[in-house]
Amino acid sequence: MQVIVQKYGGSSVATVEKMQTIADAVIKRKEEGYNVVIVVSAMGKTTNHLIDMAKSITEKPCKRELDMLMATGEQVTSSLLSMIFKEKGHDSISLTGFQAGIKTEGIHTKNIIIEIDIEKIKNYLEEGKIVVVAGFQGINEFGDITTLGRGGSDTTAVALAAKFNCPCEIFTDVDGIYSIDPRLFPNAKRLDFISYEEMMEMSSLGTKVMEARSVELGFRYQVPIYVTSSNIKDKGTYIKEYDIEMEQKVITGLSVSDDVLMETINQVPYSSENISDIFGRLASQEVNIDMISQTSPSGGYVNISFTTSKDDEETVDGVMKELMKKMPSIDIEKDTNITKLSVVGMGMRNETGVASKMFRLFSDNCISFKQVTTSEISISYTINSSDKQKAIDVICEAFSL
Amino acid sequence: MQVIVQKYGGSSVATVEKMQTIADAVIKRKEEGYNVVIVVSAMGKTTNHLIDMAKSITEKPCKRELDMLMATGEQVTSSLLSMIFKEKGHDSISLTGFQAGIKTEGIHTKNIIIEIDIEKIKNYLEEGKIVVVAGFQGINEFGDITTLGRGGSDTTAVALAAKFNCPCEIFTDVDGIYSIDPRLFPNAKRLDFISYEEMMEMSSLGTKVMEARSVELGFRYQVPIYVTSSNIKDKGTYIKEYDIEMEQKVITGLSVSDDVLMETINQVPYSSENISDIFGRLASQEVNIDMISQTSPSGGYVNISFTTSKDDEETVDGVMKELMKKMPSIDIEKDTNITKLSVVGMGMRNETGVASKMFRLFSDNCISFKQVTTSEISISYTINSSDKQKAIDVICEAFSL
Repeated sequence: MQVIVQKYGGSSVATVEKMQTIADAVIKRKEEGYNVVIVVSAMGKTTNHLIDMAKSITEKPCKRELDMLMATGEQVTSSLLSMIFKEKGHDSISLTGFQAGIKTEGIHTKNIIIEIDIEKIKNYLEEGKIVVVAGFQGINEFGDITTLGRGGSDTTAVALAAKFNCPCEIFTDVDGIYSIDPRLFPNAKRLDFISYEEMMEMSSLGTKVMEARSVELGFRYQVPIYVTSSNIKDKGTYIKEYDIEMEQKVITGLSVSDDVLMETINQVPYSSENISDIFGRLASQEVNIDMISQTSPSGGYVNISFTTSKDDEETVDGVMKELMKKMPSIDIEKDTNITKLSVVGMGMRNETGVASKMFRLFSDNCISFKQVTTSEISISYTINSSDKQKAIDVICEAFSL
Repeated sequence: MQVIVQKYGGSSVATVEKMQTIADAVIKRKEEGYNVVIVVSAMGKTTNHLIDMAKSITEKPCKRELDMLMATGEQVTSSLLSMIFKEKGHDSISLTGFQAGIKTEGIHTKNIIIEIDIEKIKNYLEEGKIVVVAGFQGINEFGDITTLGRGGSDTTAVALAAKFNCPCEIFTDVDGIYSIDPRLFPNAKRLDFISYEEMMEMSSLGTKVMEARSVELGFRYQVPIYVTSSNIKDKGTYIKEYDIEMEQKVITGLSVSDDVLMETINQVPYSSENISDIFGRLASQEVNIDMISQTSPSGGYVNISFTTSKDDEETVDGVMKELMKKMPSIDIEKDTNITKLSVVGMGMRNETGVASKMFRLFSDNCISFKQVTTSEISISYTINSSDKQKAIDVICEAFSL
């Protein structure tokens, strides 16, 4: 059975009219001989609207109930799209996450898929139906409706493609993956190919097109992923195994994120207990620490800086308050005008010059950086947001992005 | 376990604010020591809005998909209401129809409940939770989401009460059952009690407060049903077993319906084959015939009149068109300005004078009626809609309704 999984995001299904348009594209695929499984998001701003209703009740709605609420959005899209296929003369059926056999576990609003029983979908495909699956959702062992968190519909699509051992096409509001966000650098180039590893790195470093875990899932099961726009007929980007075609480039992309909170704790009495206490407290509050740097001890004190997401600002404030009770010597600085730039490329594995080239670029252009971290295929820098555009321009120029 | 099932209709859950109000009433019940199961409808006009979206795709949306679409409405209400209970400090959980164990069968959009597995609800009640069930929906043997048709949330509530062997309270936008719709006769009296049989008869004859099948379910399982308004503190109406308290009245209520299409077929060649052919054709198109009358044969021809719902007008037109091909002699008259009046009362079983009193009332007031039918506890008349108000006034007066 030649199956293809296609995922359509919220803006491509925002209205019935838009659904009509994508339905035609799907039908074309079907007529080419594919068995088509469509994964849909909620229409336009529906999810936000539902969350707003919940937030009008309480700032922190019960997550189990929030899942119950949010899951309706994709269910609505799936049934309407299925009606459209039928109206256009193609048999179709819509399935919620649980009907599609998507079993999940974890904490509500952030579940992960643990298993998909695709028998039901398979049977419907064999009957010639276009199967429309409500993305972003599943069911847990207690029979509760769950959702998969940000980018959850992509995860649904890639997981289904993995199970069917078939390609996955992601239709979104951009026409592929760019070496850098075109809003930041208008001459950005759309990539024809990017490796799973690079894409994962880009995603986790702040490039918003796809969440890292969907790409990781694709990587693990070797699902060819094609990311493109549902609006135009331009080509998109293939996310696939790293191969010879990609080898010419050292740097594939530049990922930019303003979602950085930098916290500096000055005058920490120097002891490994104290330092592990600080990060232990943050970990117990589920604060995700990104970069850490520490000055050398001086006079029995050290200064420690770390970065995290701005989402965690309130939690971090709470932890710092507690900390000041225990270590009265400390003095805390908070900086939210920070940008993180990350150059990413598989080629960096064999090429050692990137870091030094970057340092030279920064120094030549009077850009000071605050922290640096490296992975096998990326180097990340935090800089003052005021230097952001200048840094982007010189890096894109230097690496022909 | 002392359980109570309460159902809240669409207008009582139209906004989060209104839900807050009913939540307080529910919590009071809970604090009185009841284990509370709440059944909710979709918020305000949500169902209509969903249907409108489907209708913008096609005049006749696939009913399986329509069920999938509509069921989201109650799911949204249930999760929001559950959040409200939690916010007010009372543990709660929302359940969709399938999670609540409601198994159905039949045609989509008009399924019937065949079984309820209440184990899950029972467990949640034992944990002290207020259980909020999405009304109007269930799941069929194929795992498809189904809905129960008009008044479906009432059916969910009464069926759950039957299963728990407990009372059922229906909160709606009227404060009980009236002897006649107060919009038609402002001095109408609210009934303190009405028997299941009378209520079924009233419902099936056009009184809109509750659908006949919910009352029938209550009758079959002897569920005490209390119908009242969620807005005011007035008393409502108990629907229960006929008993001594109700025996004083011959006539309990007057049901009025304008949803009447009267079709007259003149000059039908008289033969039982022809007549059975006419009603056979209508039955095969699922046209529900209400009253039938026939003139005595004259010159080998008879005239036949029947009434049905205006919903079936298009279907009836189609059948008549076919019929004229087969019986060229016939001549068809259609009348939609017809009102059906039905007096209902258990007392009529032992009292024979009602029909003659009615005929006298009509004759004294120059109201001509077109058709009459009787059941054990009701007599129905069709009249010209122009005589409607006059007829209502004299009947209400004569029987002190």
